[in-house]
Amino acid sequence: MSSTIGSHFKVTTFGESHGPACGAVVDGLPAGVIIDQAKLQKYVDRRRPGQKHTTSRKEADFVEILSGVYKGISLGTPLAMLVRNREARSQDYQELASVYRPCHGDYPWQLKYGWRDPRGGGRASGRETVSRVMAGAIAEQFLEQYFATIESEHRFGVVAWLESLGSLCVKYAPDEFEDYLEHLTREEIDASIARCPQRKLEPLLEEALSEAQSNGNSWGARVVFAVRGLPPGIGEPVFAKLNSRLAEAIISIPSAKGVEFGQGFQLCSLRGDQANDCWIPSSDDSAGQPRLATNRQGGIWGGLSTGATIWGRVAFKPTPSISLPQTALNTEQKTQTISIKGRHDPCTAIRALPVLEAMLTITIADLVLAGELSRMEQLTISN
Amino acid sequence: MSSTIGSHFKVTTFGESHGPACGAVVDGLPAGVIIDQAKLQKYVDRRRPGQKHTTSRKEADFVEILSGVYKGISLGTPLAMLVRNREARSQDYQELASVYRPCHGDYPWQLKYGWRDPRGGGRASGRETVSRVMAGAIAEQFLEQYFATIESEHRFGVVAWLESLGSLCVKYAPDEFEDYLEHLTREEIDASIARCPQRKLEPLLEEALSEAQSNGNSWGARVVFAVRGLPPGIGEPVFAKLNSRLAEAIISIPSAKGVEFGQGFQLCSLRGDQANDCWIPSSDDSAGQPRLATNRQGGIWGGLSTGATIWGRVAFKPTPSISLPQTALNTEQKTQTISIKGRHDPCTAIRALPVLEAMLTITIADLVLAGELSRMEQLTISN
Amino acid sequence: MSSTIGSHFKVTTFGESHGPACGAVVDGLPAGVIIDQAKLQKYVDRRRPGQKHTTSRKEADFVEILSGVYKGISLGTPLAMLVRNREARSQDYQELASVYRPCHGDYPWQLKYGWRDPRGGGRASGRETVSRVMAGAIAEQFLEQYFATIESEHRFGVVAWLESLGSLCVKYAPDEFEDYLEHLTREEIDASIARCPQRKLEPLLEEALSEAQSNGNSWGARVVFAVRGLPPGIGEPVFAKLNSRLAEAIISIPSAKGVEFGQGFQLCSLRGDQANDCWIPSSDDSAGQPRLATNRQGGIWGGLSTGATIWGRVAFKPTPSISLPQTALNTEQKTQTISIKGRHDPCTAIRALPVLEAMLTITIADLVLAGELSRMEQLTISN
Amino acid sequence: MSSTIGSHFKVTTFGESHGPACGAVVDGLPAGVIIDQAKLQKYVDRRRPGQKHTTSRKEADFVEILSGVYKGISLGTPLAMLVRNREARSQDYQELASVYRPCHGDYPWQLKYGWRDPRGGGRASGRETVSRVMAGAIAEQFLEQYFATIESEHRFGVVAWLESLGSLCVKYAPDEFEDYLEHLTREEIDASIARCPQRKLEPLLEEALSEAQSNGNSWGARVVFAVRGLPPGIGEPVFAKLNSRLAEAIISIPSAKGVEFGQGFQLCSLRGDQANDCWIPSSDDSAGQPRLATNRQGGIWGGLSTGATIWGRVAFKPTPSISLPQTALNTEQKTQTISIKGRHDPCTAIRALPVLEAMLTITIADLVLAGELSRMEQLTISN
Repeated sequence: MSSTIGSHFKVTTFGESHGPACGAVVDGLPAGVIIDQAKLQKYVDRRRPGQKHTTSRKEADFVEILSGVYKGISLGTPLAMLVRNREARSQDYQELASVYRPCHGDYPWQLKYGWRDPRGGGRASGRETVSRVMAGAIAEQFLEQYFATIESEHRFGVVAWLESLGSLCVKYAPDEFEDYLEHLTREEIDASIARCPQRKLEPLLEEALSEAQSNGNSWGARVVFAVRGLPPGIGEPVFAKLNSRLAEAIISIPSAKGVEFGQGFQLCSLRGDQANDCWIPSSDDSAGQPRLATNRQGGIWGGLSTGATIWGRVAFKPTPSISLPQTALNTEQKTQTISIKGRHDPCTAIRALPVLEAMLTITIADLVLAGELSRMEQLTISN
Repeated sequence: MSSTIGSHFKVTTFGESHGPACGAVVDGLPAGVIIDQAKLQKYVDRRRPGQKHTTSRKEADFVEILSGVYKGISLGTPLAMLVRNREARSQDYQELASVYRPCHGDYPWQLKYGWRDPRGGGRASGRETVSRVMAGAIAEQFLEQYFATIESEHRFGVVAWLESLGSLCVKYAPDEFEDYLEHLTREEIDASIARCPQRKLEPLLEEALSEAQSNGNSWGARVVFAVRGLPPGIGEPVFAKLNSRLAEAIISIPSAKGVEFGQGFQLCSLRGDQANDCWIPSSDDSAGQPRLATNRQGGIWGGLSTGATIWGRVAFKPTPSISLPQTALNTEQKTQTISIKGRHDPCTAIRALPVLEAMLTITIADLVLAGELSRMEQLTISN
Repeated sequence: MSSTIGSHFKVTTFGESHGPACGAVVDGLPAGVIIDQAKLQKYVDRRRPGQKHTTSRKEADFVEILSGVYKGISLGTPLAMLVRNREARSQDYQELASVYRPCHGDYPWQLKYGWRDPRGGGRASGRETVSRVMAGAIAEQFLEQYFATIESEHRFGVVAWLESLGSLCVKYAPDEFEDYLEHLTREEIDASIARCPQRKLEPLLEEALSEAQSNGNSWGARVVFAVRGLPPGIGEPVFAKLNSRLAEAIISIPSAKGVEFGQGFQLCSLRGDQANDCWIPSSDDSAGQPRLATNRQGGIWGGLSTGATIWGRVAFKPTPSISLPQTALNTEQKTQTISIKGRHDPCTAIRALPVLEAMLTITIADLVLAGELSRMEQLTISN
Repeated sequence: MSSTIGSHFKVTTFGESHGPACGAVVDGLPAGVIIDQAKLQKYVDRRRPGQKHTTSRKEADFVEILSGVYKGISLGTPLAMLVRNREARSQDYQELASVYRPCHGDYPWQLKYGWRDPRGGGRASGRETVSRVMAGAIAEQFLEQYFATIESEHRFGVVAWLESLGSLCVKYAPDEFEDYLEHLTREEIDASIARCPQRKLEPLLEEALSEAQSNGNSWGARVVFAVRGLPPGIGEPVFAKLNSRLAEAIISIPSAKGVEFGQGFQLCSLRGDQANDCWIPSSDDSAGQPRLATNRQGGIWGGLSTGATIWGRVAFKPTPSISLPQTALNTEQKTQTISIKGRHDPCTAIRALPVLEAMLTITIADLVLAGELSRMEQLTISN
């Protein structure tokens, strides 16, 4: 079991879906960060169940800060947070003590640990991600205040939106994608029930979600993420490169099955001169400042941020919990038909977006702290 | 800088492209592993430059073992290995001291560290991966011997092959892909100049590579990987899941821009009943043993191996070093035209395949050791 | 800030003295350990304040388990525990917001973090150790059950007793010290108000403690610890040797100023032939089994346990919080006279004994798990 | 096996006594440190064998830098160093393949790993410490340059001297000990064959060493260490306190059996008012600047440096390798008489002094880097 992520901004999470509580301990947060509890709560509320087209499980998810803050300011000591698991309908899961849901952790977890909490998947439940979002909220407050002290073109910010759901897919007008990458806001994204910024898709998305929910089925979805305002040089080669650490963090999210940076898999079919990002020649640039003509690589070169927006895509598979009948293995090593009850999202990706943002932010907070140590301040020699 | 990967099978690498040597230290290798030096050398030779359609840099890459082995058997102490950097044509790189190659680490590394070795990209060179392959060879010898003591349907093994290069793409006959996943051998793969198993593509691939090389251009490529014979339960949720740790390791490889597990991004457009892997009902199965009907998820559920073959795809961008003229930034913060000399692969992915296999193997060795500790051996209680 | 200890049995603690709660998260506990909550509570109660000659602060210190346990058995997931800080007389500490108590963390913490919780010393309070004791209780239950599956001469157990307080010092009869090392029980130790096993010292110790308490002064003390039933081979050279890791854990306890293993500092004045532990020649040994004639080294050779009892001594300085007037620095960078109010132990060491036992046990649990991976099971070759 | 120490300034060592080489990899060294190879070599030479009254094994111990440095300046990439094991008289150790030397690692290492290199103790040899000293040399060059950019009363520096050997013990004149702590130099210490600064003891020490050598015996010794010029606030509570991390590093040195900070074990017999360090009242201080009247605590409060000199003592046991006959266990589980041949120091502590300095410096480098991240730079609020 490995429930700590990060080497400098260290996040440890705990909690089973139907146990007493879920929580997170953030160790390594510097002293002097103003902790805005209302903002923290609002951040956590974005992944809360009980919204339309999400599981009907309703949890207040009130975040209690247990340590690390004095008079609203971080102490530099571990900041522990807790949410209680209030409404746990464990009875929905009694059947699951004896049968493994297909494509869930149930089966390999039982083989690995020999003992598991079958109620809602225990620690393998999506409920676990509430701890990540709590930590992400702290990471965001830290980074916003940290970068406020640094001159920067852009304000630091992380967003993610839904680009496709099943066969429904956003078609971008010219420059629209680039515009989204640089300017789309969480408010604009959250205005959509599916967190998809293209309003004309809204009725179709809503219909698809309703249909899946009533059919006891679910949808996969593709998501775009963007990190703005990150200065160049973030990342710790050769193993903790910015992209490798982000990939680890992203793929640790339940249901995430793929990740790509910049044009990603599209780059496989291109030539070098089609894939490279080059600068605009000084002569062609009215501003006179060298700038990149393109951002096909997703803002990361050699494992380090370049100062451009970091972007990429994530594949979320359909929620594996469906109520349609499936052939499953049971604890007697026999097959049986299962129809999964309980409350499940018709598309995991929608509520996973705040989790994705949290994981990106936590990882960046860790690497930003690591990067503080990369060179002697007085270094005057340079190539 | 973070040049150690793993928590139990810990690999630390060092070395610049044109410095005295590249090396790796493996700490955490158990005692009692028979170390076959010839096999190690052969494993490392698979990524060696100087083969056709790869860079013409020729290095003997003779691996010297410095510690950790006594009379051919591992001691449980750190196993250090070294290859000397023999043929380093540093003069090819003198121009690069004052200009940043587009899409290389040069630019952000300079901003981060304020000081860099411009010869061949220094530590940001693909040369660095020779250290990873040395460690991968040790990991493979360990795992093969480790799993030999465990009853298993399949023998443990890792393979990877090239599935597409530019617009050339393998078309699989029915069941052919599944057959490759389970049975394709390294020997069969290495018989192709491009490490692509479909022989009819060979002339086209060779032509495309020759053309890129003569044009001073390069190609992107897509790669499939498969890990066979891994028992169920490998992975350490919630942050060191098998897929999240593999993603981190894979994306740390130079030029890797995306990774997906199982059907990955294709799952985004599917419904739950189309994406889930279910068992074959006992009644339909002649063997009487429950088995999975499909392996769309890539052999990982809830972050743990299921016993099925682990598989996925990796996107490699075109080699960014091309001799075609590009507009680059120089250290004077001005743009200038650059035409990159030196010896470069027309398609990075081909030589990256052994590196990919090495990173997969290293990561699995680490998680296999971690998994040893997941439960009390005497545990008799179960759900 | 570094509030996690251990690489395999990982303990993360949090909490300020007068914040909402103190807690611990244990990650890496294997699945299948029976968690006895009553035993856990009893273990924690041993360090509870409010006993005679300890601080009069009274805390129920009721331990709530938040995660990681299902039906009384560990899941292999993080086990989080919490105690609320109920009776916090913060007003006692208002003066301390502007003056640094001599030999406390106040002064360097302020310089380091620029912000601190002055109430009771915040995280630098002895209150913090309640988290360690919670984790120690879990480590003990784990190790007891773990070693029950291994054949062993002795049962695993950790004890510590007070050997001196100020100028009062235990005088051991011949063989008495060795007998204590092997057989003294926690019950026998706790029968004494000062946790000193020599009953004839009891009235003198009680008098010394009363006097210190009424004078607003305090006493230093020397403590002996013993770890029994540890099999040989525990420890991870060259940096995580058993003794080096125990030293780190011990010295992290507030007020611990020194540690020695076996005869420790006494060995400085001896010759090799006086200091070495040798075997009893077979001819002299009635049992016919080779055994060690002495245990001067404290049961550790080359950084590994030998199978003999691990023992050593720890120096605890006098409680630095005394109500006698002292010249202190204040936040205005001026000196002022301070007389520390609040509730303080006349001898920290007494309540620190369970903390010492906890730290020893946590560290051993970590190294026992690490040691599981030291060699291939099938290894048949040996020197 | 755990051969990496540190979380930020990470040192990984490798090498067996009679294997091909010993080495160290330093990862986390910032870019821009001027690496003076001659100074590095001189630092390493201080622990070299072949000096009078040390083992007669002669090794050039020429340090080769393999990576991490370009044109004499650190790159921020891993700095790997190597010394070859030139003169290895393995034949001296052939007998040891079948018998375990008392109080050496031989016995528990064999039980743990099942396989060991018996030549000179393999990795359990004192030879291993050459890697630590190489890394210590780099840490010292880093810290000297790092602190040169910070205003400080004192220059950063680490020294250690021999205070006692057997029954011979330095008697300090009034204020002499404090004077040594603040001003004694390595040159003054190295002027003595035993690294003892009191010249009148020199003939007695030399006689004691000669006698031990001719008798095939050895001596224990007590050592004092001092770290000067460390700013306040270094240390990472609650587990990586400055003293706990130093204790871990010190006790990992072969033959170190105890460590104390400041007056250490002497504090056990004192009262709080005798043990605390207080400030000199402003009225009594001619300089007008508040300063501490005493430094009994060794310069560490609450686990953090205070700005005062860090000091303490270390107990080194007598070299366990003696040629006098001893009863040992052999690999047949029988006892036999052993007389250890080979070349051994009559007092390990003398050559261990540079190792002690190296371990102190490595640990401080790690905590200094960690401390960079403890608070937001713009923090303006304070208590």
